[in-house]
Amino acid sequence: MAEPIVFRFDFASPYSYLAAEKIDALAERHGRAVAWKPVLLGAIFKHFGTVPVMRQPGMHDYSLRDFARSARFHDIPFRMPMRFPVATQVPARAYYWLLGQDEELARRFAHCVFRTYFVDGRDISESAVMLNISAKLGVDPVALSSAIENQATKDKLRQETDAAIAVGMFGAPWITVDGEHFWGTDRLPQLERWLETGGF
Amino acid sequence: MAEPIVFRFDFASPYSYLAAEKIDALAERHGRAVAWKPVLLGAIFKHFGTVPVMRQPGMHDYSLRDFARSARFHDIPFRMPMRFPVATQVPARAYYWLLGQDEELARRFAHCVFRTYFVDGRDISESAVMLNISAKLGVDPVALSSAIENQATKDKLRQETDAAIAVGMFGAPWITVDGEHFWGTDRLPQLERWLETGGF
Repeated sequence: MAEPIVFRFDFASPYSYLAAEKIDALAERHGRAVAWKPVLLGAIFKHFGTVPVMRQPGMHDYSLRDFARSARFHDIPFRMPMRFPVATQVPARAYYWLLGQDEELARRFAHCVFRTYFVDGRDISESAVMLNISAKLGVDPVALSSAIENQATKDKLRQETDAAIAVGMFGAPWITVDGEHFWGTDRLPQLERWLETGGF
Repeated sequence: MAEPIVFRFDFASPYSYLAAEKIDALAERHGRAVAWKPVLLGAIFKHFGTVPVMRQPGMHDYSLRDFARSARFHDIPFRMPMRFPVATQVPARAYYWLLGQDEELARRFAHCVFRTYFVDGRDISESAVMLNISAKLGVDPVALSSAIENQATKDKLRQETDAAIAVGMFGAPWITVDGEHFWGTDRLPQLERWLETGGF
């Protein structure tokens, strides 16, 4: 059995959202599973002393246009959220807590978080929004609220972010297959070729 | 007759080289001409206060790997030059001088410059290398040497670089079709869709 593809992302990253809508079907075409790992891109930028694409000089307007155009290109619903970016500790911790119980549920939760932010435009850093998502998925809201503040859940997210930095992740999405790293939704065609050919 | 696609690039940019190997055939499939415009990416970075991808924190090793992998993906010969990057005033000025005489020759010259740098690994900022290219193409070396130092040729390159900044170019390659901008070789599929559909 081949190792799962590792898909690292931040819930507030537009290109991560686009990749999230594509990665499972792509992997399935090649008989691979995908391990989804949300991380904190803010911590990664802080580590490298870099800034997100929207804050890089000259790139703001182009990026906004490219997010929307790339979504249309991939036929994915997308609307730029009014509040951008937002902190993603809460959904990321909730994801890892769910993952410990039910991977399929955690995956549905992750999709729901992305779509709540990038389709519905709701602020996923707000507790009310998180509780709404948990209600939709039949997750106990009290247990979720408590898990988010749990030290073990906090530690897990910190460890995963540190592990992302350790493998060289400097931007999102960051996809790894058999030790080969692919940065960006625009590298999905290369990832697919890699899976088809076993490396090229 | 539709306006030509504008292809802006720097002769020392690996992704520009990859796009240069693809852009004419892509445009031809949609009945479009391409206006090639070398510019000085260093001046653009200076304008925005940015640095090339290879000097962005954390991105050096990934970029090297991605240049080569992207070349293999597109089936384009590529070898990372030992000296990188190099100043490209000389070939860019020579290009504009040739363009004023013979567009087809200027295009062949541009291809030859890219391949001399990214396949043969020779330093295209050196006069000897430039003279070698001109000899290959049957260009008068004395006229070329003189043109490179000509104030009109220098001014032309400066104007084209300023024009690139004015349309928002912050990186290379930068491809514009009917006012829509595409940054990067990885946007060629979106460019092609744009040409097919007249915008999406």
